[in-house]
Amino acid sequence: MKKIRIGIVGYGNIGRGVENAIKQNEDMQLVGVFTRRNPESITLQTENVKVYSVDEASNMVNEIDVMVLCGGSATDLPVQSPHFAKMFNIVDSYDNHSQIPKHFQAVDNAAKEGGKVAVISTGWDPGLFSLNRLFGNVFLPNGSDYTFWGKGVSQGHSDAVRRIKGVLDAKQYTIPCEDAVEAACSGKNPTLTTREKHIRECFVVAAPDADKSRIESEIKNMPGYFADYNTIVHFISQEELDRDHSKLPHGGFVIRSGQTGNGENKHVIKYSLQLDSNPEFTGNVLIAYARAAYRMAARGDIGCKTVFDIALIDLSIISSEELIKNFL
Amino acid sequence: MKKIRIGIVGYGNIGRGVENAIKQNEDMQLVGVFTRRNPESITLQTENVKVYSVDEASNMVNEIDVMVLCGGSATDLPVQSPHFAKMFNIVDSYDNHSQIPKHFQAVDNAAKEGGKVAVISTGWDPGLFSLNRLFGNVFLPNGSDYTFWGKGVSQGHSDAVRRIKGVLDAKQYTIPCEDAVEAACSGKNPTLTTREKHIRECFVVAAPDADKSRIESEIKNMPGYFADYNTIVHFISQEELDRDHSKLPHGGFVIRSGQTGNGENKHVIKYSLQLDSNPEFTGNVLIAYARAAYRMAARGDIGCKTVFDIALIDLSIISSEELIKNFL
Repeated sequence: MKKIRIGIVGYGNIGRGVENAIKQNEDMQLVGVFTRRNPESITLQTENVKVYSVDEASNMVNEIDVMVLCGGSATDLPVQSPHFAKMFNIVDSYDNHSQIPKHFQAVDNAAKEGGKVAVISTGWDPGLFSLNRLFGNVFLPNGSDYTFWGKGVSQGHSDAVRRIKGVLDAKQYTIPCEDAVEAACSGKNPTLTTREKHIRECFVVAAPDADKSRIESEIKNMPGYFADYNTIVHFISQEELDRDHSKLPHGGFVIRSGQTGNGENKHVIKYSLQLDSNPEFTGNVLIAYARAAYRMAARGDIGCKTVFDIALIDLSIISSEELIKNFL
Repeated sequence: MKKIRIGIVGYGNIGRGVENAIKQNEDMQLVGVFTRRNPESITLQTENVKVYSVDEASNMVNEIDVMVLCGGSATDLPVQSPHFAKMFNIVDSYDNHSQIPKHFQAVDNAAKEGGKVAVISTGWDPGLFSLNRLFGNVFLPNGSDYTFWGKGVSQGHSDAVRRIKGVLDAKQYTIPCEDAVEAACSGKNPTLTTREKHIRECFVVAAPDADKSRIESEIKNMPGYFADYNTIVHFISQEELDRDHSKLPHGGFVIRSGQTGNGENKHVIKYSLQLDSNPEFTGNVLIAYARAAYRMAARGDIGCKTVFDIALIDLSIISSEELIKNFL
């Protein structure tokens, strides 16, 4: 079997997750990792694979089938995705929801110029949660949507806490409120406020001389991040933070509640993820969509795609005959 | 907007569910219902739509875009699906899992002969549960699968009880065992026996002179249906059965539990349905796949398809631009 040759751009948590995922998929092969850092400063988990400077990628267009872009959505991907889509089939996990239409357009133009396939905004939200929001709407046209996140670490909120004066380190967990999840699953289509849906829990390491009550107040009143939520703040030591909060778990629920008949029959569709490692699971999702990008490109398709455009059979290593026999 | 013109073959529970579903989808229009019964004996829930004898369908190939086949899997669909696939784009809910490859082949030959698209084995199992079994395998290649059904009415098991001598009427509920669902969601990949996964609960109306202990024993020891399960039998009156057990609720869970990294990170994907009306929800699913069949045929595609072959965008009434903006 000819393996699908994968390149990884960016070797942070997601990049390492993708590297891990390649090992779980026997039709995949890691060809190289591309970084803006000094390549010699990076040691991969995979033997006999080289780390390159990101500028060397353009010399390797014939050696890589799909480039998996693992940069951040704030500043990396808006530049990298169109740049690489001119040269390679790509997959990214762009997650800035409000800017996705703009990102789609830029990547679509680039991919069409290069004759490549680009799959954007994969991962689990956007990605699998998007699929399930739409599946819910398709199968229950009369209904309401609910998305809950957590329990899990939000990197953005953890960063926001760390920027407060006197904070040395911090982790923030987003936690769905059980009552709200239960209400969403009741079939009664309740209206739920932001405050009712999630609570936020922060574990904070403060500098020895810092005013903890000021830090707590700054966290709880931070607009856009915490002001609209009930927030719990714990002050702990750096040792405790390192010991108890080093992992990156996450997950959540997509719930669609709807009616049929004359409204007398209620139905609830619930999709949930419970992930010990957000980046490793995200890596698995990116690699499945890399397989689809490769196959679509092999069929002569070009342009930007989303999870909505891709049939499940293109994500799977299993043959159509075997799928019909064993999975239907 | 030109509406998609739908015909329904078979006006039982599923046929009425499809009729209901058409009302929830503004791009759909019911053109006719086709029956083997006397057409005059049937009154539809939709005004100004005619009931035809099933033999009249062949005169209406230019008036119907997709024929939704609502017969049973035991004897109707193996004949009807290939028969209609020569003349119409079709959708069916063929659910005899072990015979699906054979059904696929027969329908594929017919659809290719007629230049039509046929989508088989839609509904929720096979159908949405199949999709979720495969999604689970794709995103967690190292893992275990669990499917649970219920709480819901199994028509096949209810029929089996009704065939016992001295039984006037009966309803059978399949109930997933909470401990087993919890174990499957634990991430520990337990091995669960048939008996551990589900219990079966029967509500039986016995003839006045019937030997209830013999009936109970015949139910509990019936091979293939009840012998491998813990079964609870209640004897109730016909009035109680009609009052408390007239609905057809169903549902269930598809769980995929898997590991990443060196096995230290566990992940659980759970998909669940909780349906007040199995046939009405199934009708909604059939109608969404009818939309996809129509669009694929309009693009010139032909042959037999399954849920694995169809991109989500083809199921939805919403435009690509709006999906990217509002659902990703």
